[in-house]
Amino acid sequence: MEELKTGYNEFTIEGRNAVIEAFRSGKEIDKVYILDGCQDGPVMTVKREAKKHDTMIKYVTKERLDQLSETGKHQGVIAVAAAYKYAEIEDMFALAEKKGEAPFLFLLDNIEDPHNLGAIIRTANLAGAHGVIIPKNRAVGLTATVARTSAGALNYTPVAKVTNMAKTIEDLKKQGLWFVCADMGGTTMYQLDLKGPIGLVIGNEGEGVGRLVKEKCDMVASIPMKGDIDSLNASVAAGVLAYEIVRQRLQ
Amino acid sequence: MEELKTGYNEFTIEGRNAVIEAFRSGKEIDKVYILDGCQDGPVMTVKREAKKHDTMIKYVTKERLDQLSETGKHQGVIAVAAAYKYAEIEDMFALAEKKGEAPFLFLLDNIEDPHNLGAIIRTANLAGAHGVIIPKNRAVGLTATVARTSAGALNYTPVAKVTNMAKTIEDLKKQGLWFVCADMGGTTMYQLDLKGPIGLVIGNEGEGVGRLVKEKCDMVASIPMKGDIDSLNASVAAGVLAYEIVRQRLQ
Repeated sequence: MEELKTGYNEFTIEGRNAVIEAFRSGKEIDKVYILDGCQDGPVMTVKREAKKHDTMIKYVTKERLDQLSETGKHQGVIAVAAAYKYAEIEDMFALAEKKGEAPFLFLLDNIEDPHNLGAIIRTANLAGAHGVIIPKNRAVGLTATVARTSAGALNYTPVAKVTNMAKTIEDLKKQGLWFVCADMGGTTMYQLDLKGPIGLVIGNEGEGVGRLVKEKCDMVASIPMKGDIDSLNASVAAGVLAYEIVRQRLQ
Repeated sequence: MEELKTGYNEFTIEGRNAVIEAFRSGKEIDKVYILDGCQDGPVMTVKREAKKHDTMIKYVTKERLDQLSETGKHQGVIAVAAAYKYAEIEDMFALAEKKGEAPFLFLLDNIEDPHNLGAIIRTANLAGAHGVIIPKNRAVGLTATVARTSAGALNYTPVAKVTNMAKTIEDLKKQGLWFVCADMGGTTMYQLDLKGPIGLVIGNEGEGVGRLVKEKCDMVASIPMKGDIDSLNASVAAGVLAYEIVRQRLQ
């Protein structure tokens, strides 16, 4: 993927008190690295704050922390803050309403590669989607690489983080959305009605859509596979499905 | 893009005589790095061989060569050989005939990012295309990264290198192919007839399709852009267009 040379930067917050302060001030933290085996008071406080905010914790060696550190004074704790501010799902509905369109959301069930996440946000913007929902845990967040590969789309397309993707789908169904997930063995996408208020669910690069999430979906869409290998790249699959939705909506 | 941990490796050939020998034995060389300013006999022979084979030459500093060198004995010359063997365009026609299908080729007008090239070859395989044509100069070749991101597609989908893309299009037109290139300001792809023997031309990540190549195309297809930014990622755009061809062919 081409990397635009722009100034997006996620930033790290280093040291126990600085990280605790960051959590308490409401800063968006994507990930906390903690020295493996470290159990003292302030570190336990960091862990509690991270859990309270559903922030991913990674336990790492001192060598890894030293490598990640920019100040050299990490005291066993480094937090990575998002390069961009996360939005709320309500912002997406507001955007759809403002445009006078039926809501069209992307839900990413654990995209792990920042280039894929950036490319998918870029696609969401150009396909006219009103927002992208990603999970709080495990998946990649809005890092500098994601911002770059989104080619500016992060400035326009709201991205929200949720704790429980299956529950979010359930809630959004009550607001009238239909959900379609991409998976093998589903109905060929051309045969589905994808015109109404819709959530497009894209699975993880290796494992596809998780079982719990898939069970919540109203439709399973398959992209016709005429080749010898297994699956498209996740961001290509998202693009192909999104544009089938665009095609049907344009009719 | 997820990187499959497989054993593909491009390899380097180092030293003047080794590189000259590699050319003369017909090995597929993607690129030659030559010490900038170096003019002696054997280096001039390397340059001549590279030109004869339309191989890209990069003039670099001694520091860069030292960095690229695996043996430490480059003598001012390092060649990078393809991880995969290139095919011929005839192989693609043979494949189409074997499958009883109208030929469907991808032509990439200077894709520079190996992740994009890999993802596009992966898409070409799954969209049922019979081959991918790339230019000899400037663009990225079949490196190890391309092989990995193609997720195995390089084992099935033939990739050919050509010297002059515009001339190749002209030749292939005589064999009955129609050419469609992706560009802004064209006809919305849904309104074009993309069912017959077809070549899908995808442009460079930043600059799009070159003027000379675009002039040879029969149709210019546009993907509807409903967002705020300029363009899709090149591999996503290739996927969206390829699947419009698939959709029309399935009708």
